[in-house]
Amino acid sequence: METNTGEFMLSARDRPENSSDPDLTAANSEMIYRVFYSKAKLKAIAQTSALLAGFAMVAMVEVTLDNAVPYPSILLVLFSCVTTLLVIVHLFSLMIATCILPNIEAAVGIRKWTSSPHNKFKSQIEVAWILSTGFGLVLFLIEVALLIWIKFWTIMDHGPPQSVTIDSEHLVTDSPGPPAPVNNNPSHKGAMLAAIIASVAFLVPGGIAFIYFGASFYSKLANHAREIRMSEMDKIHEKRLL
Amino acid sequence: METNTGEFMLSARDRPENSSDPDLTAANSEMIYRVFYSKAKLKAIAQTSALLAGFAMVAMVEVTLDNAVPYPSILLVLFSCVTTLLVIVHLFSLMIATCILPNIEAAVGIRKWTSSPHNKFKSQIEVAWILSTGFGLVLFLIEVALLIWIKFWTIMDHGPPQSVTIDSEHLVTDSPGPPAPVNNNPSHKGAMLAAIIASVAFLVPGGIAFIYFGASFYSKLANHAREIRMSEMDKIHEKRLL
Amino acid sequence: METNTGEFMLSARDRPENSSDPDLTAANSEMIYRVFYSKAKLKAIAQTSALLAGFAMVAMVEVTLDNAVPYPSILLVLFSCVTTLLVIVHLFSLMIATCILPNIEAAVGIRKWTSSPHNKFKSQIEVAWILSTGFGLVLFLIEVALLIWIKFWTIMDHGPPQSVTIDSEHLVTDSPGPPAPVNNNPSHKGAMLAAIIASVAFLVPGGIAFIYFGASFYSKLANHAREIRMSEMDKIHEKRLL
Amino acid sequence: METNTGEFMLSARDRPENSSDPDLTAANSEMIYRVFYSKAKLKAIAQTSALLAGFAMVAMVEVTLDNAVPYPSILLVLFSCVTTLLVIVHLFSLMIATCILPNIEAAVGIRKWTSSPHNKFKSQIEVAWILSTGFGLVLFLIEVALLIWIKFWTIMDHGPPQSVTIDSEHLVTDSPGPPAPVNNNPSHKGAMLAAIIASVAFLVPGGIAFIYFGASFYSKLANHAREIRMSEMDKIHEKRLL
Amino acid sequence: METNTGEFMLSARDRPENSSDPDLTAANSEMIYRVFYSKAKLKAIAQTSALLAGFAMVAMVEVTLDNAVPYPSILLVLFSCVTTLLVIVHLFSLMIATCILPNIEAAVGIRKWTSSPHNKFKSQIEVAWILSTGFGLVLFLIEVALLIWIKFWTIMDHGPPQSVTIDSEHLVTDSPGPPAPVNNNPSHKGAMLAAIIASVAFLVPGGIAFIYFGASFYSKLANHAREIRMSEMDKIHEKRLL
Amino acid sequence: METNTGEFMLSARDRPENSSDPDLTAANSEMIYRVFYSKAKLKAIAQTSALLAGFAMVAMVEVTLDNAVPYPSILLVLFSCVTTLLVIVHLFSLMIATCILPNIEAAVGIRKWTSSPHNKFKSQIEVAWILSTGFGLVLFLIEVALLIWIKFWTIMDHGPPQSVTIDSEHLVTDSPGPPAPVNNNPSHKGAMLAAIIASVAFLVPGGIAFIYFGASFYSKLANHAREIRMSEMDKIHEKRLL
Repeated sequence: METNTGEFMLSARDRPENSSDPDLTAANSEMIYRVFYSKAKLKAIAQTSALLAGFAMVAMVEVTLDNAVPYPSILLVLFSCVTTLLVIVHLFSLMIATCILPNIEAAVGIRKWTSSPHNKFKSQIEVAWILSTGFGLVLFLIEVALLIWIKFWTIMDHGPPQSVTIDSEHLVTDSPGPPAPVNNNPSHKGAMLAAIIASVAFLVPGGIAFIYFGASFYSKLANHAREIRMSEMDKIHEKRLL
Repeated sequence: METNTGEFMLSARDRPENSSDPDLTAANSEMIYRVFYSKAKLKAIAQTSALLAGFAMVAMVEVTLDNAVPYPSILLVLFSCVTTLLVIVHLFSLMIATCILPNIEAAVGIRKWTSSPHNKFKSQIEVAWILSTGFGLVLFLIEVALLIWIKFWTIMDHGPPQSVTIDSEHLVTDSPGPPAPVNNNPSHKGAMLAAIIASVAFLVPGGIAFIYFGASFYSKLANHAREIRMSEMDKIHEKRLL
Repeated sequence: METNTGEFMLSARDRPENSSDPDLTAANSEMIYRVFYSKAKLKAIAQTSALLAGFAMVAMVEVTLDNAVPYPSILLVLFSCVTTLLVIVHLFSLMIATCILPNIEAAVGIRKWTSSPHNKFKSQIEVAWILSTGFGLVLFLIEVALLIWIKFWTIMDHGPPQSVTIDSEHLVTDSPGPPAPVNNNPSHKGAMLAAIIASVAFLVPGGIAFIYFGASFYSKLANHAREIRMSEMDKIHEKRLL
Repeated sequence: METNTGEFMLSARDRPENSSDPDLTAANSEMIYRVFYSKAKLKAIAQTSALLAGFAMVAMVEVTLDNAVPYPSILLVLFSCVTTLLVIVHLFSLMIATCILPNIEAAVGIRKWTSSPHNKFKSQIEVAWILSTGFGLVLFLIEVALLIWIKFWTIMDHGPPQSVTIDSEHLVTDSPGPPAPVNNNPSHKGAMLAAIIASVAFLVPGGIAFIYFGASFYSKLANHAREIRMSEMDKIHEKRLL
Repeated sequence: METNTGEFMLSARDRPENSSDPDLTAANSEMIYRVFYSKAKLKAIAQTSALLAGFAMVAMVEVTLDNAVPYPSILLVLFSCVTTLLVIVHLFSLMIATCILPNIEAAVGIRKWTSSPHNKFKSQIEVAWILSTGFGLVLFLIEVALLIWIKFWTIMDHGPPQSVTIDSEHLVTDSPGPPAPVNNNPSHKGAMLAAIIASVAFLVPGGIAFIYFGASFYSKLANHAREIRMSEMDKIHEKRLL
Repeated sequence: METNTGEFMLSARDRPENSSDPDLTAANSEMIYRVFYSKAKLKAIAQTSALLAGFAMVAMVEVTLDNAVPYPSILLVLFSCVTTLLVIVHLFSLMIATCILPNIEAAVGIRKWTSSPHNKFKSQIEVAWILSTGFGLVLFLIEVALLIWIKFWTIMDHGPPQSVTIDSEHLVTDSPGPPAPVNNNPSHKGAMLAAIIASVAFLVPGGIAFIYFGASFYSKLANHAREIRMSEMDKIHEKRLL
């Protein structure tokens, strides 16, 4: 909201819509639009990525892995990989954003739209954007689901404990003691049910909806941008014909 | 407060209320109003959603589930589902907001109100708005109630422990030892009472009031917007008739 | 501080105090004042409420309830109720603020002061204001006092433990072992004293002063606003009489 | 830094130092100075107080009181009182700041300097200022010192444990077992030394310097303000004499 | 987005591209560009560095080292060194940024571009930039990988415990008791696998990609800046020839 | 970046470099530069100090001192002193910054550069600056090193436990039980190595580089400021001679 209205006020006074303003010909306006668009995108990336990378690291530090609980390998592998990927993806976006932003800001500061590097780094900005807003958010969703599994695995019933198969004669003497509480964990059914429902009934459709809408969004926005540009081009052509 | 007053000062000088300003005809003003409105909404969504999604994840990481406590299945299922939903809802709103905002900001930057995508994505903005401010806040309330239940369940009296029904002959030998402290938890009555009162006497009416006022708000704001638009239309018609 | 001075500079140049500026007649100025006032209030609400609701939730997640400590029922009931209320009150204010703010901001953006919904939602803004700044802060104070009681209850002397009355013959055999440390908690006197002094000698007068000054503030501000409006009205009447 | 320079640029163009600007007579300028000064003060209060109240509450929630440690009464009493006071003081300042700020901001928004309530609430603003920046920061320092004592008390040597004096014949049987590790805490000398040095050698002189410089600051700033006002008054008198 | 558009609006009105504006000759514009560029860079450094140094310290405080786990020396050495380096690198960048920024901001405030110290401290700004955005982010990635190893080492199978080799006759009596659970940690395979996959399959390529893209970015941005400057120089030469 | 460019645009239009602008004579410009410089410095101090004081307090609250570990006295003394000093230093800087900033901001608001108190409080601003950016950051580095030592001391090999020397006949009976795990801590070598390397090989050179570059920075900046001022003075003299 800030002061964007300020310029519109000032210009409304002395600038009719199709004025001969040297900076605001259709072609120029398209270019300036791209500069502002890249700047707004990179700013959004920098903010979201720093926040989510921080949350991912806090989750890694604070989660408590119980020494006596037989976590399945696949869960641990997935958790460590998703956390690592999440941090890599967001730090990568952050690096791209903080590298290109100062150049664009300085170019905006002296109004040399052509000296802004947003055109040369078009694909990198796009990659950072998709990594941060698309891939990064989906990874964040998966991270939350894995956290729920790790939390609830602690209070689940893990079937006959692994130590049974290894030292079996040791089992005879005092097995009723230690393994019993593991085997009869009082809330194992609820934990299993909760983790399954949360992942299958909510996260899977949620993730699919996320990806579907994200992709449709992206194509719709691209279409919108193309249409706007097309109509601008048409206007220029018409003018030239007149 | 920032500099919104700046433009009013500048325009007050040389712009009577019904001036022939090319940018500020009634129809145009309606359009610019919608651009600013969408922008302010999306900014509010982005801020609130990031914050609440973060709090939900922290709550999930930090909550400690006790291995010896027989949590009821329904509590665990609800907690995991509400947390997952909360994160999905807020990340979804965040994605929509960060996707559309840069386009609107760039359009405001070059004052091409027609190139702003707020019209094409009207329903998506509305969905993000309701998910974030309506559904998201109600879920947050429920999350807090579930956290209270999980916290207090640890110190509640859980009736005869489940392990009694499973290995009954094991119970005879040393049941007075371990199960006794569970059965006679010193503050079980207070915990039960506290959790019931907090949910039934506060959260239920609070939630209902929340939904009721939220809905009435929404309809009132919609009415207000329609009335404003109607009077604008009337003014335009009157002008044309003159 | 930002750029509020900017407009005063620009206007100081060409606008004497009682100019015939079409936007700044006394009646108009009153209306614009109310728009800015509502906007500043709602922004303050949104910031304070989000912060305090977050702190209340963190306190709920992080507090550790000891299984062996006989917390009194009233303490647990109060703690859960105050936490729930605190979160409800602040989320409610947050919802109101984020619902109305975008409308006011968009209205300010196009300078249609009449299209701002601050008049229609006057009572809701007032309710959100009192809930957030008045009721919410008092609840926060009470929350801190309850936290101190819960923390210190753990190290207090709780009289003869409850388990004594239930299984008394069990007590004979090994009572000198476990119950003794509970009964003779080394710092029980200090904990009791600290909790009593903090609540009675500080929180009660502090809370009363808080409510008293809050109420007197509110009436004083209302008086101030009425006086300003009265003098404005008088000026208008005088002008009409001339 | 923001845009304060903007107005100086605009005015530098067409306003000599002693111009006949109707808004900027010496008397007026003094009034506007007070409005801006009150606004800047209240903003600083709101930010600092919310932060420090939050830190105090987090410290209260997170500190762990050990059941087996004989904390001295005075330490517990002081800790609970200082925490309560700290929260009260900062919430009180926060309430005053959030109550008065919207009025001042709205008054600045419409440039009616006389309608700003900063004059009527002069003493309250001063009280909030001293509570937040003076008293509040000193309390925060004391809170840190008390936290160090509580932390280090856990690993100090507490002399013969209290339980010795109470059940002395019980001591004979198994005293070599449990009390021995308490009595011979391996790092008790260092902990005692550390707590004493930190409080006596650093906190006491630090606190005194804090209060001394705070008070001298306050009087120096008051002097400065009086001198500025005096010279202004002299200028007005001189002008009238001419 | 803020008000950068404001100046372009104002200038678009009365400044053709190659105007004889005394401040905006090609040489001057290059200088102003460098001032704005340094300022934007230093601001980005200050924000990123403070955040990441804080996260590194929190990770150090919160990580729990288990007394009974035989961490390998190399892991502990790496963890402590990386944490220390991370904090040093970011605090160093923070110091440089906070030292030079006020000078540049004040120089921008009075528009004396030549008095800005960005030229004299060119290499320091560059060093801070590379330390913060390049080296600092890579260290942060390594820190996350080391955290995963430390977390997962706790639940790994550590082979025959070290204590076996030291007091071997002690082992005979009660070795089946304590060492067994260490030796047969139920989730050791998964933990080992997870840590290896996360580091080797994700972090190593991720880190390499990070360094590669960072370096290529850096050279590309330098090229871009050189090209822009070259074309500016050419324009000046051409003008002089005419 | 905000709107600093705004004023340069507006002034570029109608102000040649050596114009007779009454506000921008060389002497005046020097004064305004000092006002902006002090303001930017104090803002940076307020932000950095609040953040680092908060981190120091969190570190104090969260660090866990183990009752059974014989921490050396010097470590505990250093840790408590550095934490106390860190909090004092940053709160002191914060107090100075929040005391002087509102005065400077209000003076900037009404453009009475002479009424700004930055000249009278020159030494205090300098003290706050050095305390916050110089001394405060070095203390923060030392704090991190001490945290590493405290963390790693828990898992180090502490030689024969102290209790051995005190009750030696008690040692004979059950010494093989408890002291053995302390004596043979499985990761003591790595911990010792890690702590030594982190402090000696990284922190000592890092700290020295920090102090060296900080001091050289400070003198270089002072030189730069003096040179700028000298050349300004020369210009004034030359003008007077002409």
